[in-house]
Amino acid sequence: MIYFDNAATTKPKQTALSRAQIFLTERFFNPSAMYREGFAIQGEIKQARTALLAPICSTQEFEFIFTSCGTEADNQAIFSFAKRGNAVTTQGEHSAVYSTFQELKNRGVIEPRFAPLQKDGSVDVQKLLDMIDEKTSFVSVNHINNETGAINDINGIAAKVKKKNPRVIFHSDGVQAYGKIPFRLSKDIDLYSVSAHKIGGLKGVGGLIKRKGLVLPPYIIGGGQESGRRSGTENVFGIKQFEYAATEKFATIKEDWARLKELRSFLLAGLDKEIFAPISTENGSPYVTSVYAEGLRGEILLHTLSDKGIIVGTGSACSSNAKHRYSRVILACGYNEKQADGVLRISFCDETTRNDVEEGLEIINSCARELRERMK
Amino acid sequence: MIYFDNAATTKPKQTALSRAQIFLTERFFNPSAMYREGFAIQGEIKQARTALLAPICSTQEFEFIFTSCGTEADNQAIFSFAKRGNAVTTQGEHSAVYSTFQELKNRGVIEPRFAPLQKDGSVDVQKLLDMIDEKTSFVSVNHINNETGAINDINGIAAKVKKKNPRVIFHSDGVQAYGKIPFRLSKDIDLYSVSAHKIGGLKGVGGLIKRKGLVLPPYIIGGGQESGRRSGTENVFGIKQFEYAATEKFATIKEDWARLKELRSFLLAGLDKEIFAPISTENGSPYVTSVYAEGLRGEILLHTLSDKGIIVGTGSACSSNAKHRYSRVILACGYNEKQADGVLRISFCDETTRNDVEEGLEIINSCARELRERMK
Repeated sequence: MIYFDNAATTKPKQTALSRAQIFLTERFFNPSAMYREGFAIQGEIKQARTALLAPICSTQEFEFIFTSCGTEADNQAIFSFAKRGNAVTTQGEHSAVYSTFQELKNRGVIEPRFAPLQKDGSVDVQKLLDMIDEKTSFVSVNHINNETGAINDINGIAAKVKKKNPRVIFHSDGVQAYGKIPFRLSKDIDLYSVSAHKIGGLKGVGGLIKRKGLVLPPYIIGGGQESGRRSGTENVFGIKQFEYAATEKFATIKEDWARLKELRSFLLAGLDKEIFAPISTENGSPYVTSVYAEGLRGEILLHTLSDKGIIVGTGSACSSNAKHRYSRVILACGYNEKQADGVLRISFCDETTRNDVEEGLEIINSCARELRERMK
Repeated sequence: MIYFDNAATTKPKQTALSRAQIFLTERFFNPSAMYREGFAIQGEIKQARTALLAPICSTQEFEFIFTSCGTEADNQAIFSFAKRGNAVTTQGEHSAVYSTFQELKNRGVIEPRFAPLQKDGSVDVQKLLDMIDEKTSFVSVNHINNETGAINDINGIAAKVKKKNPRVIFHSDGVQAYGKIPFRLSKDIDLYSVSAHKIGGLKGVGGLIKRKGLVLPPYIIGGGQESGRRSGTENVFGIKQFEYAATEKFATIKEDWARLKELRSFLLAGLDKEIFAPISTENGSPYVTSVYAEGLRGEILLHTLSDKGIIVGTGSACSSNAKHRYSRVILACGYNEKQADGVLRISFCDETTRNDVEEGLEIINSCARELRERMK
């Protein structure tokens, strides 16, 4: 099997799993317990916090709040700070942000605004800025688009947003960026959501990185864990495995980026140009490549490929339960429904090899040609 | 080490861990993915849902929504339904319910009411009923008190509550009851919260059991997982391990209850009566036994015991981060601060043996005597 759906989820890193195993066996204690063994687990969580923060920001300036997933982190950021006036986001957001903004609209508390995208899936910065006024309380712009891999220069955007309205709280969904793109949070970023299972961590663990000094109300209330910002017994095994997986991932982040950039060029060059047209550009994250095969149905191609052992995605896996047939993000990029129907998303991880891409290309091209023949 | 703090968290069941391991390795797929491997994971989650429901209710009448913990389930139940008029709970709730009711008060949306407790930690049913009127929208009564083990007859209470006001939504926090007390949900229970890590499952997994037909709004919004009631990529490993651990636990639920009841009598009989007085009664859950040693500090005794390899709790581990020195639940039972200061909670699991209790008793008694000597 060749797995090219790493933007949906990655295989947990084996070494990190083995290292964390002890928290499922001997060291299973409740981190809130008042005996030595419990305190020690609290210390382990603290260590994880630092290890997860340090590669992307100053641990003096930011802090890390563990959540159960990226979606929860996004929800907490939005519901905590999009409370008055209007809030601005983009049409390219993951449902965790997009649908939550829609919910703000349903509740009628504030006016949500959705900035349009450019063809590659990045936000049209000027149009986003035009939407920000003195009543804007909250802005959320994803760091890397989960469907196209387009990168938003969130440090640059946040600086411009704050220049226009310094009172805005700036959030970014960094789920597809954290541990992948070499990057550090600037002073203009207030909140940043991350997820473990996109970089070899486990499903069920995420985090909200928060500027110190910013008062974050809890979204889940109870025993006061995470300094009162997120109650519920901590997922210790998941947290430690995330720490170990991220540390491993950050150690080679630049090399991975460069190597996958080459692999992605190789992929784009190798896809049959009579069938596939790229949506992703060379400027985007090399981890995510979207293409479309106009006239073919991406979903059928996906099934054919899966029968041959090649696993790819179509748009965001997380929204596959939704009723929408076409990806709203791809439509927002300016593609029509026929084009959106033929989208394939091929997403890499740090373990993807040139051999995977070579083999994958051969099968993807031949399956697509066959499907096109059948549809004639 | 003898571990007597199972009400705080239990050691994950080894067989269940081994069986679920495959979801961390070969079968790591995203359950929302549209290829065969993803669908199969969706099927695994569905199977877990049924396996977790069937032992305590009809799967025709109830459904199971996975959450990241019992606290999240409690929050979702409360914030979804305690929306108008007043809401009634008890003074014996875990912080996940109690603090969330306090938050309702802070928000000023509805009036929270807290029914008093009896000496053993169970709710005073008549006083609870007296608080319910035509404006009551929501009632939450824990099934088993996490500090004293007192059992509330929630089926009986729910019937009386509904007789008084049939429009009330009745919720129960079943975190200390699920998989422990032989029991089935009656038609009067609308919502029931459960947690994996109290019965050999993992931290990071819980669930909200919901009567079918009751419309539950999502509390975490996004990709539409859990039929739109809880977004965020599912914690597949945690969910499957919970299924396996619960199935194992339910298989011997009656035998465990009877055996631990004997062990608990043995424990209460063996504690030095000149030092310890019971808070828990024979009517309570045999999994949780609270006693107090008036004049001794429970915290110091806990540390002394931990040095000798006996791990016990003092009140709820989950609220140890809170500033309150005394357990509000123990005070609500009618004990004074001096008594509350000396509380020890000894909590069993299905693997606790008579030998553990014998050895534990000897050390607990001798440590307490020594401590009392030193304090004279």
